[in-house]
Amino acid sequence: MFSTLPVYAVALIMFRDSGDIGLIGLAVMGQNLILNMNDKGFTVVAYNRTTSKVDNFLANEAKGTKVQGAWSIQELCAKLKTPRKIILLVKAGQAVDDFIAQLEPYLEPGDIVIDGGNSHYPDSIRRTKELESKGFLFVGSGVSGGEEGARNGPSLMPGGSTAAWPAIKEIFQKTAAQAYGEPCCDWVGETGSGHYVKMVHNGIEYGDMQLIAEAYDILKRGLGLHEDEIADIFLKWNKGVLDSFLIDITANILKFKDDDGEPVVTKILDKAGQKGTGKWTAIAALDAGTPVTLIGEAVFARCLSAIKEERVRASKVIAGPQKEPFRGDKQLFIDDLEQALYASKIISYTQGFMLMRETAKELGWNLNYAGIASMWRGGCIIKSVFLSDITAAYRKDPKLESLLFDDFFNKAVHTAQPGWRRVIAQAVLWGIPTPAFSTALAFFDGYRSEIVPANLLQGQRDYFGAHTFRVLPGKENDKFKTGQDIHVNWTGRGGNVSASTYIA
Amino acid sequence: MFSTLPVYAVALIMFRDSGDIGLIGLAVMGQNLILNMNDKGFTVVAYNRTTSKVDNFLANEAKGTKVQGAWSIQELCAKLKTPRKIILLVKAGQAVDDFIAQLEPYLEPGDIVIDGGNSHYPDSIRRTKELESKGFLFVGSGVSGGEEGARNGPSLMPGGSTAAWPAIKEIFQKTAAQAYGEPCCDWVGETGSGHYVKMVHNGIEYGDMQLIAEAYDILKRGLGLHEDEIADIFLKWNKGVLDSFLIDITANILKFKDDDGEPVVTKILDKAGQKGTGKWTAIAALDAGTPVTLIGEAVFARCLSAIKEERVRASKVIAGPQKEPFRGDKQLFIDDLEQALYASKIISYTQGFMLMRETAKELGWNLNYAGIASMWRGGCIIKSVFLSDITAAYRKDPKLESLLFDDFFNKAVHTAQPGWRRVIAQAVLWGIPTPAFSTALAFFDGYRSEIVPANLLQGQRDYFGAHTFRVLPGKENDKFKTGQDIHVNWTGRGGNVSASTYIA
Repeated sequence: MFSTLPVYAVALIMFRDSGDIGLIGLAVMGQNLILNMNDKGFTVVAYNRTTSKVDNFLANEAKGTKVQGAWSIQELCAKLKTPRKIILLVKAGQAVDDFIAQLEPYLEPGDIVIDGGNSHYPDSIRRTKELESKGFLFVGSGVSGGEEGARNGPSLMPGGSTAAWPAIKEIFQKTAAQAYGEPCCDWVGETGSGHYVKMVHNGIEYGDMQLIAEAYDILKRGLGLHEDEIADIFLKWNKGVLDSFLIDITANILKFKDDDGEPVVTKILDKAGQKGTGKWTAIAALDAGTPVTLIGEAVFARCLSAIKEERVRASKVIAGPQKEPFRGDKQLFIDDLEQALYASKIISYTQGFMLMRETAKELGWNLNYAGIASMWRGGCIIKSVFLSDITAAYRKDPKLESLLFDDFFNKAVHTAQPGWRRVIAQAVLWGIPTPAFSTALAFFDGYRSEIVPANLLQGQRDYFGAHTFRVLPGKENDKFKTGQDIHVNWTGRGGNVSASTYIA
Repeated sequence: MFSTLPVYAVALIMFRDSGDIGLIGLAVMGQNLILNMNDKGFTVVAYNRTTSKVDNFLANEAKGTKVQGAWSIQELCAKLKTPRKIILLVKAGQAVDDFIAQLEPYLEPGDIVIDGGNSHYPDSIRRTKELESKGFLFVGSGVSGGEEGARNGPSLMPGGSTAAWPAIKEIFQKTAAQAYGEPCCDWVGETGSGHYVKMVHNGIEYGDMQLIAEAYDILKRGLGLHEDEIADIFLKWNKGVLDSFLIDITANILKFKDDDGEPVVTKILDKAGQKGTGKWTAIAALDAGTPVTLIGEAVFARCLSAIKEERVRASKVIAGPQKEPFRGDKQLFIDDLEQALYASKIISYTQGFMLMRETAKELGWNLNYAGIASMWRGGCIIKSVFLSDITAAYRKDPKLESLLFDDFFNKAVHTAQPGWRRVIAQAVLWGIPTPAFSTALAFFDGYRSEIVPANLLQGQRDYFGAHTFRVLPGKENDKFKTGQDIHVNWTGRGGNVSASTYIA
């Protein structure tokens, strides 16, 4: 009887319903994630639009594994157990919508479409609603850790249709990196929150990298140290509060030599690229009205690096300060620098969690902040000991208003403060740019100020635009009343057309 | 014969074709702009959706003027000379599109619709295309200067359908403020460029205000001066390079007392409001990849001011540095502060013009930078002597790459540099936040750096994500070749799936 069927149909019948999860998109990330899930005991069905990639993958990287191929969307869906779980790892944007449209005819109610790409969270909000309205479930999952993370255990940040979580939890948590005895994956929250949290993660990554770059610059241009000496400093820091993947690889990079013995890093063009998620975070912060200044400066620092040719021209016509040799104790200064980096990092994460809190409030998400910090402890670029401390802070107080209010971080930032200030003051006099260190300190000093000079701004706005102001608590009187929009006729020239409720 | 016609029709016949320009929207700005145009000898036809406002306006503010009323869109159009010129001063957004749709049936080819509201430039780009496709002309014009500017002479920044300019030039240039013997109005450029330039103007205004607020904070909290003393300092500065409207009104505000003798400014709640155009500028900068850091920090500083209650809580649990009394020469420090403010302002405008240049490149606009600077010299919030110097710089070299390359500003920033650095270093040690001063200096030091530490960033990105890098000029060798995307196998663990063209 089989002889009357084409080989394709035979294969379809044999493998029907045997796949635990399907994956569409066999670029590096997709291939590695499949091999990772296979290692963890799951049967993955692999599909790619250009189906020769399926053949190549099965014949090479996936050879000898339980991975199955599919050469059509229909076949992919036929090979999966229900509720079907299908991960898309394709280019963000139209391609995701196209594949969802292709999948829909073969899905049954309760099936789960998972977008593991770098989608922007508003798209994930929309897709959750669209798929749920058709009876399907949608998960937008941040996947972090690059190629290596995908292969050996990424940080996974799934959010979307809450009903999908029990069905995918085991696969996701086993596939994810494990850190401190826990999976670097937990349910993030509603609709687009998975991709939102991934976006903030990437923004924070921009910040961490910029902070390290500024420390490197100070050590090199300020103290005049060689890359080998700087690598040793990072290695030492990697044993303390800064212990993290990025500090670790920085030491490795600084030590890596070309054949002529020169550090390769000194041969790399100083134009930083970017793929946009740092920018998205900065824009989200501006839209939310949340002062996420450090990520903003980190993104702009990459922009400034990118105009290399203009900088070269500028360097020939603009002189910095006369370089004074450093007269202090180098080791003390290096210790100060460690504290400056640590304090600035605390500010950056404080700002990042402020942003998530604000957005959750606005969009009605219930975010588990301890879970988010714990997911980032392994498998991703920003993994660090530091994130364990943040996890602990939010586990102790899930409603913690600000990281700076947590005892551990409050003490840490107070300890770091004197050195942090000394480093920035020195860099300012040296002429070494520290946009991220400086903005972190400016935020810190503004945040802890009961009064900031925005009273003058409000006076100016009322003066030239009759924008009105409110009275400072404690300064109320008959004319300046609490809860009133107050306008002062500053010059006596105002007409009767102002938006005021009170004319002084 | 007239007796058989309704009074309305008689009026229509009598006034047909007599109006030079129509204006829709009789809020304060609209009323004042009408009275201003009337003063300059133009016959304005005034219309408002709620027509009782037309009656009120004619009976009160416009009594005894040549201003005519219109009680319908049809009547408004009938009363205007062709080509009709109709200014919309209505709420940005849907209302603009709605009025355009209402106008269209009564327009003839060549008629000009002018949007003088706070529209976002992408809308003006779209509206230019839509109206031109129907044979009409569209102008999106920035109008700056608030109520008083509208009444006595605003800064007008018209852009859009180039063919409209000759028809509106006389009215616009006579209605605008006059400064240094020239009108504060010139043709900006194509499609949405008028509103774009107005947006950048507003962003720069945010920056100027933040810089002044930081100077005030340093004088008050740093040097411990009283508002009267600080006002005197601003008055003195207003006679020098900082001579400007904002410095002038700052002195007035600081001197303005409540009945109890206390400066009113000290009774104003330190929560700054914002209407969004500063934010738009920061987002436009991020989208254009241009490091407009000062406006970004100014917007974020307003956000930080807005979370007053959280700041109050933070002020109780976070301590700053021990306040050391100031031991230096106060007057020298105040002179340094003037230079810090001046240098930071130079950076802010440098960044603003960089952004306009970048956007013009991207959208194919031909912007007249000298014209833009000259338009801002009067009638608007940022009017200043400073803008004359910028006008001169761009008149001398219309293709000037950066303000910092102009002899005048190059010399100014070099002169200011030592004091600028001393002020920031001191504020950092005092614990007084200077986000705008600091980011300006960080930009300056980065901009004049031939090498920034983005080489390390690129190394990191290649290490964890195989993002590749380029070779630094002068460091090329057999393996590191110019124009190649280089990947280094930093750890020896990379597979054959990287995006590399070269594996070291």
